[in-house]
Amino acid sequence: MRRIRLIISYDGTNYVGWQVQPNGVSVQSLLEKALFELTGETIRVEGSGRTDSGVHAKAQVAHFDTEARMAADKFAIAMNTHLPRDIRVLYSEECAPSFHARFSAKRKTYTYTVQLGAHADVFLRTTSLHLHYIPNIAAMQQAASCVIGTHDFNAFKCADSPMENTVRTITRSEWTKNGNLLTYTVEGNGFLYNMVRILVGTMLEIGSGKQTVSDLQKAIESGKRSDAGATAPAHGLCLCRVVYPDFDTEEVLNRD
Amino acid sequence: MRRIRLIISYDGTNYVGWQVQPNGVSVQSLLEKALFELTGETIRVEGSGRTDSGVHAKAQVAHFDTEARMAADKFAIAMNTHLPRDIRVLYSEECAPSFHARFSAKRKTYTYTVQLGAHADVFLRTTSLHLHYIPNIAAMQQAASCVIGTHDFNAFKCADSPMENTVRTITRSEWTKNGNLLTYTVEGNGFLYNMVRILVGTMLEIGSGKQTVSDLQKAIESGKRSDAGATAPAHGLCLCRVVYPDFDTEEVLNRD
Repeated sequence: MRRIRLIISYDGTNYVGWQVQPNGVSVQSLLEKALFELTGETIRVEGSGRTDSGVHAKAQVAHFDTEARMAADKFAIAMNTHLPRDIRVLYSEECAPSFHARFSAKRKTYTYTVQLGAHADVFLRTTSLHLHYIPNIAAMQQAASCVIGTHDFNAFKCADSPMENTVRTITRSEWTKNGNLLTYTVEGNGFLYNMVRILVGTMLEIGSGKQTVSDLQKAIESGKRSDAGATAPAHGLCLCRVVYPDFDTEEVLNRD
Repeated sequence: MRRIRLIISYDGTNYVGWQVQPNGVSVQSLLEKALFELTGETIRVEGSGRTDSGVHAKAQVAHFDTEARMAADKFAIAMNTHLPRDIRVLYSEECAPSFHARFSAKRKTYTYTVQLGAHADVFLRTTSLHLHYIPNIAAMQQAASCVIGTHDFNAFKCADSPMENTVRTITRSEWTKNGNLLTYTVEGNGFLYNMVRILVGTMLEIGSGKQTVSDLQKAIESGKRSDAGATAPAHGLCLCRVVYPDFDTEEVLNRD
């Protein structure tokens, strides 16, 4: 038995999300189906974390165990022949049996993309949120910097998510503007369910003048979901990087 | 009766092309449906030219005549409320009754996008052709420059297209590389049916070593379709600009 780890990219538009669900097709289920077709084995694929319906990934990490004797680096190409074109395995290699895509992860990076303009760009309609007004970017930038550090993010999780430790450390949180595109990049040691989307939703309300930067600070202090803003739509969100002690998706993907 | 002209952008993935067809949904038919819903009039929308199934537009131009009393600049927003999200009217204004989207056009620009890499980028899968090898870009660039000037492009039209004058003047024809993206930009006073796709297909065969630059020159001289290369897939192609004596889509779209 060997453990293989993968880097996977997907356009989340047509899926119920990463995780196997009763009500539709998930990315995880299609990866498991591809592995069954390749190996004849019923294989569980463990991801670094689930992504919601409509959320994208440029670099999701997953691992699985197999008895198949295929060279580890060939799994990427072989799996792709059994996958739809909106899911690609970008890389595969053998890893230590102790490696776990979720529990070994040290750091993750997400981006959230907003497009500005009178009319939405049709080519970005599934990967960015369209705003027809120009928000106060300076205020959003100020709000983003408040998020950096170790905080209790209890106010920024889905209200019905399970009890858990809600303290996370955020090492990067910033908005950058490039033409009509406004991108939020956030890097941290972990994220609660819907945390990035609620952070973005709150900052967009700050950008439109509905909330202030001190409202966001207050939400961090109170830990009350009702003090934070609305959950931003899923389709602007993308998982861009996962870092492990011995594995960094960005380093691997930039190799060639 | 007034004549209105539009700038329209669309993702061609889900359509049979610009033109009304019996076998599926076209962009033209949805624009006409939107106008019917807005005005109650049965209106013919004339485009600057048809685009094939899967071909995209960042700036297609069309005109129509209407008795509706809506302010001309409001048609864009009003039509968008009756259109799917992969078609957007970006601009509308009243024009002279003598303006004709097709016959008044002086110059058009198309791009054809190729992505290079071991695995296709899922986010570019519907807007670029994926090549898993690195072509000879210098040879493709040399071939592109042979196209500039006034030539008989009879070899570069769909074999079963109607008899017509096949002489066209090309004022720009070049490949540019930006990271993994290779983009062909071609500008001319008109294009035959499938002409850009056959030019690209021929240059891709030059890039892969299957043909040489002198083969392309020979095809221009012979006028024989069989001397040119295969027709490149539709989904890399995009209509990017149309210029008229009194109207330039690029100038209008860059105004704000």
